[in-house]
Amino acid sequence: MSLKYLSQKVAQTIDEELMSAAGGFSVDQLMELAGLSVAEAVQKTYDNKKYPRVLVCVGPGNNGGDGLVAARHLFHFGFRPSLFYPKQPNKDLYKRLLTQCQQLQLPVHQDNWSTHVEQADVLIDSVFGFSFQGEVRDPFKEVIQSFKTTSKPIVAVDIPSGWDVEQGPTEQVDYQPSVLVSLTAPKQCAAHFKGSHHFLGGRFVPPALAQKFGFDVPAFKGAEQTVELPRSSSL
Amino acid sequence: MSLKYLSQKVAQTIDEELMSAAGGFSVDQLMELAGLSVAEAVQKTYDNKKYPRVLVCVGPGNNGGDGLVAARHLFHFGFRPSLFYPKQPNKDLYKRLLTQCQQLQLPVHQDNWSTHVEQADVLIDSVFGFSFQGEVRDPFKEVIQSFKTTSKPIVAVDIPSGWDVEQGPTEQVDYQPSVLVSLTAPKQCAAHFKGSHHFLGGRFVPPALAQKFGFDVPAFKGAEQTVELPRSSSL
Repeated sequence: MSLKYLSQKVAQTIDEELMSAAGGFSVDQLMELAGLSVAEAVQKTYDNKKYPRVLVCVGPGNNGGDGLVAARHLFHFGFRPSLFYPKQPNKDLYKRLLTQCQQLQLPVHQDNWSTHVEQADVLIDSVFGFSFQGEVRDPFKEVIQSFKTTSKPIVAVDIPSGWDVEQGPTEQVDYQPSVLVSLTAPKQCAAHFKGSHHFLGGRFVPPALAQKFGFDVPAFKGAEQTVELPRSSSL
Repeated sequence: MSLKYLSQKVAQTIDEELMSAAGGFSVDQLMELAGLSVAEAVQKTYDNKKYPRVLVCVGPGNNGGDGLVAARHLFHFGFRPSLFYPKQPNKDLYKRLLTQCQQLQLPVHQDNWSTHVEQADVLIDSVFGFSFQGEVRDPFKEVIQSFKTTSKPIVAVDIPSGWDVEQGPTEQVDYQPSVLVSLTAPKQCAAHFKGSHHFLGGRFVPPALAQKFGFDVPAFKGAEQTVELPRSSSL
């Protein structure tokens, strides 16, 4: 199978089309399905008895929103998720997603990152997504630096945070996640992923849209929301 | 396992609490997860090669919305769904859900119900849900009457349409679906269900909410969004 990897611009355009009047999706819906995919990828990879403590590092944008949704589903899947959520935007959607996690009594941390990492079995990197550009700043600089040095497995949501969406690892950020969950379609940087499992999530792409942008949607099984991509699928 | 079956009033209160400021859910989110559950229940029960043509009968309220979401997921699960949607409300959410189906080029019908039934392998009854009260009127009267006489298997979303939410079959409507997908928790009328498969869908209930209303959430497997309930779980 040969997959086309998307540029930053095409990824943004596809997102906009899905949420346009012609596409009909709300951000609530897409985020729900994206976050559910991430949780399913974690569930497929890590046993909830051996790796119960999932620390979700939540950024201030849509990638963070996916992480909040994933945390909620992981709770229902029998994991014990907690959130590291230092910058909480004052936006209705994110506030509601946080409320949903608080209803499950998930611990929410805003500092002491390194302490929480020590107590986790798996980390989820939902800090920055395909819209991120520029330099990583604190409080996330410390977090992303620790991704390079920690021995804990890391699941990256769509993009390893701080990577260049197209070029992959940068001088500032070159950590490798264990698991990458590409959403909608892999971005070009996924060709530089060297971890053990690459999943595609987000089973909602209309064939006409995929055709328009010239990418293939691989076959998912049954009612699953993720499909594991062959490790050979590189550029 | 002993499941508590909900009254109409308690079911409504739980829905309101989930979507309150304290619960944090949007109707988009809950409908997405409910519709996904319905699609998964269909996928678990019917082979998409033997039963590809799923006719979703869509009512004018939230039950119909669940059906629209289910139709979209069923397409992605390899079925060939079509919609019978005679009364299309002018409400943003339903219009967007319909747009999403149209993006998949699903056929949308507004009349000639009986012709479409003949060409279907499975019917989904997403006409009325737990808020329905009173008498069934056309265009849905003909539809629901045909549920009684058709030989096609029927999957009912939450409530067999026209049943009394608590008492079950009525003098006007006493059809039996083959599959019942209870959402959040079974309603009292589910005790009168005599079909072959009873699923629970909607894997989003916070334990504190279930405790408050005195019902149990059974164990789901893996990342699944439905669990089959034992046929012995009756009042």
